[in-house]
Amino acid sequence: MKLSRLGEFGLIDRIRRKVAVGRGVRLGIGDDAAWVDHPQGSSLVTTDLLIEGIHFDLKWTSLADLGYKSLAVNLSDIAAMGGTPAYVTISLGIPANFDSNKIDKLYRGINGLAKKHCVSIVGGDTNTAHSLIISVCLIGHPPKRPIRRSGAHVGDDIYVTGTLGDAALGLKLLRLKSRPKSDAVTQLLKRHTRPTPRLALGALLAKRNLASAMIDVSDGLIQDLGHICQASGVGARIQQNKLPLSSAYRALAGTIGMMHALSGGEDYELLFCASPQQRRRIETLGKQARVRITRIGVCVPATDGIRVIDAAGAEVTIKTQGHDHFKK
Amino acid sequence: MKLSRLGEFGLIDRIRRKVAVGRGVRLGIGDDAAWVDHPQGSSLVTTDLLIEGIHFDLKWTSLADLGYKSLAVNLSDIAAMGGTPAYVTISLGIPANFDSNKIDKLYRGINGLAKKHCVSIVGGDTNTAHSLIISVCLIGHPPKRPIRRSGAHVGDDIYVTGTLGDAALGLKLLRLKSRPKSDAVTQLLKRHTRPTPRLALGALLAKRNLASAMIDVSDGLIQDLGHICQASGVGARIQQNKLPLSSAYRALAGTIGMMHALSGGEDYELLFCASPQQRRRIETLGKQARVRITRIGVCVPATDGIRVIDAAGAEVTIKTQGHDHFKK
Repeated sequence: MKLSRLGEFGLIDRIRRKVAVGRGVRLGIGDDAAWVDHPQGSSLVTTDLLIEGIHFDLKWTSLADLGYKSLAVNLSDIAAMGGTPAYVTISLGIPANFDSNKIDKLYRGINGLAKKHCVSIVGGDTNTAHSLIISVCLIGHPPKRPIRRSGAHVGDDIYVTGTLGDAALGLKLLRLKSRPKSDAVTQLLKRHTRPTPRLALGALLAKRNLASAMIDVSDGLIQDLGHICQASGVGARIQQNKLPLSSAYRALAGTIGMMHALSGGEDYELLFCASPQQRRRIETLGKQARVRITRIGVCVPATDGIRVIDAAGAEVTIKTQGHDHFKK
Repeated sequence: MKLSRLGEFGLIDRIRRKVAVGRGVRLGIGDDAAWVDHPQGSSLVTTDLLIEGIHFDLKWTSLADLGYKSLAVNLSDIAAMGGTPAYVTISLGIPANFDSNKIDKLYRGINGLAKKHCVSIVGGDTNTAHSLIISVCLIGHPPKRPIRRSGAHVGDDIYVTGTLGDAALGLKLLRLKSRPKSDAVTQLLKRHTRPTPRLALGALLAKRNLASAMIDVSDGLIQDLGHICQASGVGARIQQNKLPLSSAYRALAGTIGMMHALSGGEDYELLFCASPQQRRRIETLGKQARVRITRIGVCVPATDGIRVIDAAGAEVTIKTQGHDHFKK
């Protein structure tokens, strides 16, 4: 149905009837504010703003995938604190050529992921816009001790979950006019369009008090590691040959080599530091949670900076550090 | 400074050092998520998305006013539940011609109002964009019984705070290429650019359990009254000659007459219903809080719809019901 016929409040009502709502929502979409329960006396809050033509292109991204991802990136932020997501607001700027069918597709992607993680959609705002805008604000419950970026010490091990570089290589493939068909290609595309927020593992790391600092890899390994180093007042030495690569990445990276693994963004894996005394417990945790966890380096004094060392022991020059929205 | 030189993280750091932060913020801007305290086991959440060219025009809106207003409209939503605002995230889509000076101006407007109401800015997201986008998510503490839209009964009185139509007339004046200079003009412009969220009054109405239903007037009296009527299952009869008009509105409305008072948006006054038994207490409350409160009508059965009656007892035809983002 055309939005000009449905109207703003018709659209809100349509969304209200479709969205995921779970426990703890005293009042959801449809009043001046949502009213939500908290099991504890504090909350985690994170937000992301996605803009068409800046963060995504509807030429190579489906609306369902986009909806999924707009929630996933916020879930990943809560995972990186060791928290549990709970309530979300979704605000949309909607271009003139959209109809309610397209909005439904977007919410299908959001809803599926929300339900999986028991997240309730409790509010939002709908507007006309020149291009599609999605603004998500997610509220979560903190663990007893949220894992900050600032707790790493010299000598701590550095770990990363899953594999690196897949999402960046997937984006490169998505942008190709014609691309080869193979399982590896499909896998990399999915890593870009449907990243897995590491919520269970993040929560376990916090619960067992294993990590000294944590962040999710959204802007690229080196850049996000930089945030931990800056906040913690440490440097880092990374072993390039330890970086976890998927078989799909190995098959298709070609001349790119390790570049995307070091600097490619949007993998939404967890990057964390931990005392060497925790090695066995972290190994066990990875097996229990069925998540690959790889030790990739060590925290060094801040004066040593962030260095990547290749198998021969030589320092790797990193050309691009990752994504910066303003630097060209 | 140019944002391309400052970079994304330079900008975030600059914002972090400037923003209002009060009590209850365990972790503010600079980690994956903010971590905030709650005095009670539940929260109010509201969000608004403002887009350049749709909601505002920088030709006739200063960045400080825009910052102020982007927070004010969310504070007004919390006021309309009887809540107390606490934490806010601000996400920005920033056009290429912006420098850090412009961002500072925007935050000056946000900060001033945030400090006044003890609201902490705890997070956000910064991106490049084709035009300026401001997305605000506000978390507040609920009163014991938040005032919903759905509690009005047939026979309840209908009240509104302050005066109506000023903001819409102010916008009309703002858009004029040349406009007369007078105190009345200045007053109306300010009502559009710097609306006053009625937080103290909203909280007192909730604390004393006086209002059966409440909403803020953002889209126009008749449209927002419609939301209360729909949610509560009642109709409404409004006495047109009771509508509170400012002397500035009376002086400058001219041929517009009552139109903006009935349908003009963005006054951010509180519209509420209350049992006739509460008349004296509401009168007293208005005097204590030094806020004009005017009884403008009565709730009737839903089958009677929403009617506006003029001084002679004749029904007034309402041409435009208010603002709908999608209907043309």
